[in-house]
Amino acid sequence: MAGGGQLARMTQQAAIALGVSLRVLAGSADDSAARVTPGTSVGDDRSEADLTAFAADCDVLTFDHEHVPGPHIEAVEASGVPCRPSADALRHAQDKLVMRERLSGFGAPCPAFAPVPDRAALERFAGEHGLPLVLKATRGGYDGKGVWVVKDLDDPQVAELLGQDVPLMAEEMVSFRREIAALVARSPYGQGAAYPVVETVQEDGICVEVIAPAPGLSSDRAEQAQRLALDIADKLGVTGLLAVELFETEDGLLVNELAMRPHNSGHWTIEGARTSQFEQHLRAVLDLPLGSTEPAARWTVMANVLGGDDLDLYSRYFHVMAHDPGVKIHFYGKHVRPGRKIGHVTVLGDDLADLRERARHAADYLRWGPAMADRATAKENAG
Amino acid sequence: MAGGGQLARMTQQAAIALGVSLRVLAGSADDSAARVTPGTSVGDDRSEADLTAFAADCDVLTFDHEHVPGPHIEAVEASGVPCRPSADALRHAQDKLVMRERLSGFGAPCPAFAPVPDRAALERFAGEHGLPLVLKATRGGYDGKGVWVVKDLDDPQVAELLGQDVPLMAEEMVSFRREIAALVARSPYGQGAAYPVVETVQEDGICVEVIAPAPGLSSDRAEQAQRLALDIADKLGVTGLLAVELFETEDGLLVNELAMRPHNSGHWTIEGARTSQFEQHLRAVLDLPLGSTEPAARWTVMANVLGGDDLDLYSRYFHVMAHDPGVKIHFYGKHVRPGRKIGHVTVLGDDLADLRERARHAADYLRWGPAMADRATAKENAG
Repeated sequence: MAGGGQLARMTQQAAIALGVSLRVLAGSADDSAARVTPGTSVGDDRSEADLTAFAADCDVLTFDHEHVPGPHIEAVEASGVPCRPSADALRHAQDKLVMRERLSGFGAPCPAFAPVPDRAALERFAGEHGLPLVLKATRGGYDGKGVWVVKDLDDPQVAELLGQDVPLMAEEMVSFRREIAALVARSPYGQGAAYPVVETVQEDGICVEVIAPAPGLSSDRAEQAQRLALDIADKLGVTGLLAVELFETEDGLLVNELAMRPHNSGHWTIEGARTSQFEQHLRAVLDLPLGSTEPAARWTVMANVLGGDDLDLYSRYFHVMAHDPGVKIHFYGKHVRPGRKIGHVTVLGDDLADLRERARHAADYLRWGPAMADRATAKENAG
Repeated sequence: MAGGGQLARMTQQAAIALGVSLRVLAGSADDSAARVTPGTSVGDDRSEADLTAFAADCDVLTFDHEHVPGPHIEAVEASGVPCRPSADALRHAQDKLVMRERLSGFGAPCPAFAPVPDRAALERFAGEHGLPLVLKATRGGYDGKGVWVVKDLDDPQVAELLGQDVPLMAEEMVSFRREIAALVARSPYGQGAAYPVVETVQEDGICVEVIAPAPGLSSDRAEQAQRLALDIADKLGVTGLLAVELFETEDGLLVNELAMRPHNSGHWTIEGARTSQFEQHLRAVLDLPLGSTEPAARWTVMANVLGGDDLDLYSRYFHVMAHDPGVKIHFYGKHVRPGRKIGHVTVLGDDLADLRERARHAADYLRWGPAMADRATAKENAG
């Protein structure tokens, strides 16, 4: 697996059960996955030399992010080591414009979009679809980075963005009820498997909570989302996981983003589904038969733990574990930085409101902790 | 963790989620846990020098087996590194006679027993409790090794055993309905947690199947078994897990064996309980609050995968995974030897008969595989 982040780290847990020897190419021996995986190679997965040297010892290569350049992946494929997903499939998760053009080409529902090579193109799009609109870097963005809402074409930021050497595209601003995600797997053999469709709750462009299954989603619409994701996986020749982030609008579903790897919207499957997304990705990548996606409980709620400004996260385990013996903690062993995803918590059961409260409490407490709570109280008292 | 077997390997999976840096002292870099744990120390955990050198880098020391000599553990304790369980607690899992004497001392129900320093003692015991009786090496046995059923005192094997320099004890032959096991955890803080009581099915002295909860066990008797295990953990000062293997007889429960570590009878908890025994052991050993032992399904069935004479286990994944997408495979990455525990499978659901059939099919197939099945068919056809 190229990339040593938390997705590779959690894949290692699944690899241990299957008896599969996972090898990781990580940027540093201190990376999240490198800390838990023996024989990690330290190197740059965006360097062709490092990637091909690493892949030479592997039976199959996969990725924990979408930033490995396509030509390097093609070089590995040419050396005889299969890459799953392939460079050809992966570019639809690497380039938003390529993705939009391809998906629209076979009729998958997308927001209106257009490439923005210059100001004239932007003005044309605004004339047709109105303001505000969404301006995106076609490559490299994640967690809300590389995405700008444009309310006024004369905003100096617009000129600044147009003046940089970054390929841009425009999309209509979608008025959506909520965001949902459909996670599927597809094996080289062509087998597909779809997980229950989930609701993802975002704050400041970062996913903070996932509810499985999406509350109140009609079975027709859930099936439509699953079919759409399986169809995209098939048409794009995806091997491994495919997460399709969707807007649910008054009129139906629109595709927002694609990811071809284990995805934050699927962390709930570790405890909440019979087969975790990490095991499923391994099975698909190894061309093994896919596992059951059956849910383990009526509801599963996952909340991301974001870094606060207290470095000692471990001491907060005491409160969270004593308060709620049923909460499952996943900590990624990453350096704590404010706002960075450093872990997640999961709870399962029958009472959704209670589960959401429990997940939020645990995630908030692990983020803020007693030190920060004391500080907040002190501030309140002072104010 | 001293010892690099499958228990340490599966503990690594739990350590990854908790963000705990598990270090392993393994006999070889090829050991089950060494293959999946970075920074494994290779050494002999029965050597005081190797053990104390390893422990010097640890915050707390625990064990994946009971064969580390007590004085070495005491040396580590004296160096200021806590050992959980302590040498004092662990000797009750190391020496069957010490265990019997201590448990009988506080009224825990045990079979009749006596030390057998010589033939006279054996004759005395046989005179009192009849034949057959059970002769045991007080130390070092597992999976039926070190246990002999004596039907006739004049059996040459008896003279042979008495002539060796192995401390022996005798126990009455218990006529039991079935074997059950109670798994509990106890933290240094004194918190206790009990898992549902399970039935263990043995063949040739090796556990082949575990059913959780034990079918048809009255809630009174289940509670009695849990209380007994918590009471033993408390009286012996166990820190970490304690598995109490019990005989269920017409008259009630009798203690068979103790183990102070994750135990084969608890592998079902990985998927079948909210907190796996491996996470629970880590929590207890680290003096964190214990996790929920709530079951994840009505029934969970675990079947051990024993080595057959075909070394290529992986190729059998295809059949088992395609046949049953819900079966959970755990393979320990150990060299395959006939009869050796090399993995296990787990299934969860509502229909116990169906689950047992599915678990047995998967475990048998992973053991025997198509190659052996073909051979069996060829033999049948030939015969």
